[in-house]
Amino acid sequence: MKQGHVEDKRHLRSLITRQKLLEAAREVFLEVGFQKATISQMIKKANIGYGTAYVHFEGKEDLLIVLMEDVMQRFYKIAETSFRPKSRQEAEEIIYTQVKSFLLMAEAEQDMMQIFEQAIGISSLVSDKWKTIREKFIQRISQDIAYAQQSGLARAELDHEIVARSWFFTNEMYLWEFVRKEHHRSVEEIAKTITSIYVTGLYI
Amino acid sequence: MKQGHVEDKRHLRSLITRQKLLEAAREVFLEVGFQKATISQMIKKANIGYGTAYVHFEGKEDLLIVLMEDVMQRFYKIAETSFRPKSRQEAEEIIYTQVKSFLLMAEAEQDMMQIFEQAIGISSLVSDKWKTIREKFIQRISQDIAYAQQSGLARAELDHEIVARSWFFTNEMYLWEFVRKEHHRSVEEIAKTITSIYVTGLYI
Repeated sequence: MKQGHVEDKRHLRSLITRQKLLEAAREVFLEVGFQKATISQMIKKANIGYGTAYVHFEGKEDLLIVLMEDVMQRFYKIAETSFRPKSRQEAEEIIYTQVKSFLLMAEAEQDMMQIFEQAIGISSLVSDKWKTIREKFIQRISQDIAYAQQSGLARAELDHEIVARSWFFTNEMYLWEFVRKEHHRSVEEIAKTITSIYVTGLYI
Repeated sequence: MKQGHVEDKRHLRSLITRQKLLEAAREVFLEVGFQKATISQMIKKANIGYGTAYVHFEGKEDLLIVLMEDVMQRFYKIAETSFRPKSRQEAEEIIYTQVKSFLLMAEAEQDMMQIFEQAIGISSLVSDKWKTIREKFIQRISQDIAYAQQSGLARAELDHEIVARSWFFTNEMYLWEFVRKEHHRSVEEIAKTITSIYVTGLYI
């Protein structure tokens, strides 16, 4: 019993240290960008021991990847919403809401997403992680398309994986435009237009 | 007359030096990648004087940008082909041919495109240049869509610029997949599927 208690406490302390370091990493990345950030700055800011820090993370790339997974998990929740449309119109409504939420979240998470974009360009570790995240989205979209095809709502002759990739690519590129504040249109206008093309192109 | 002759010769020599340096830059980039390449290696390989080289280019980024413009000019020729369809079917044929040529060229130029992708990630100068090139493509596609809308072939209620961006994004992302050899499908299969969604979505 006592042994277990000690281990629990140790485990808890370890989790807190990890969380402190992640929070510090986030702040350092936002302050100086990915390239200039160092793990030493993060350790100092988190006020933890060097050895302890390296138990959790090998370098700043690992820290960034955890932060990226965390943010992208929130995006993924949007893609994961139930997709069981009974009609083409219902499909269009669900998809429009998904695209709109996706782009609004890109705006909301703008600062961290800018750091992610830098890191994807520079680090192959981060870039590989981004590709894995992208594939997860594409697989999910692919399933939704297959469902619509099986229900007779979508054109069955189209390869659902190619369609899913192409659809995600459009969304992703608009996401980066919103992250960079390069858009001159509203989220709603873009979501409406791209959804209309996509649904008209895919659905019967 | 004599003065002019001397100037012509000087100008010609200058052009040759520039060309030699560009050729050497291309080779060095392909050998060691963008990050590790140095302008010194290029100057040595081109066998020209340091001072002469710097008259033409300030750094390796400038050299890469010229090489990128050159390759992308070939891509742009595809986008520039005349677009005066008389029917939806004709539009689909032209667009299919454009997408196919675009992706085949990505395969053909794979090695240099890989260098460009690295450089876009690392250098903001190169990344800005890429954005300028992208806008040129989007403007051209936008014109084509506007033409189809004016001819009554395409849905007039859609914003042609948003549609053009979204269409270019899909093409660009597949381009990078072919550059990275990440595709598991043939160029034809992808071109056919994405063209079908796009034309069905946009045309009447």
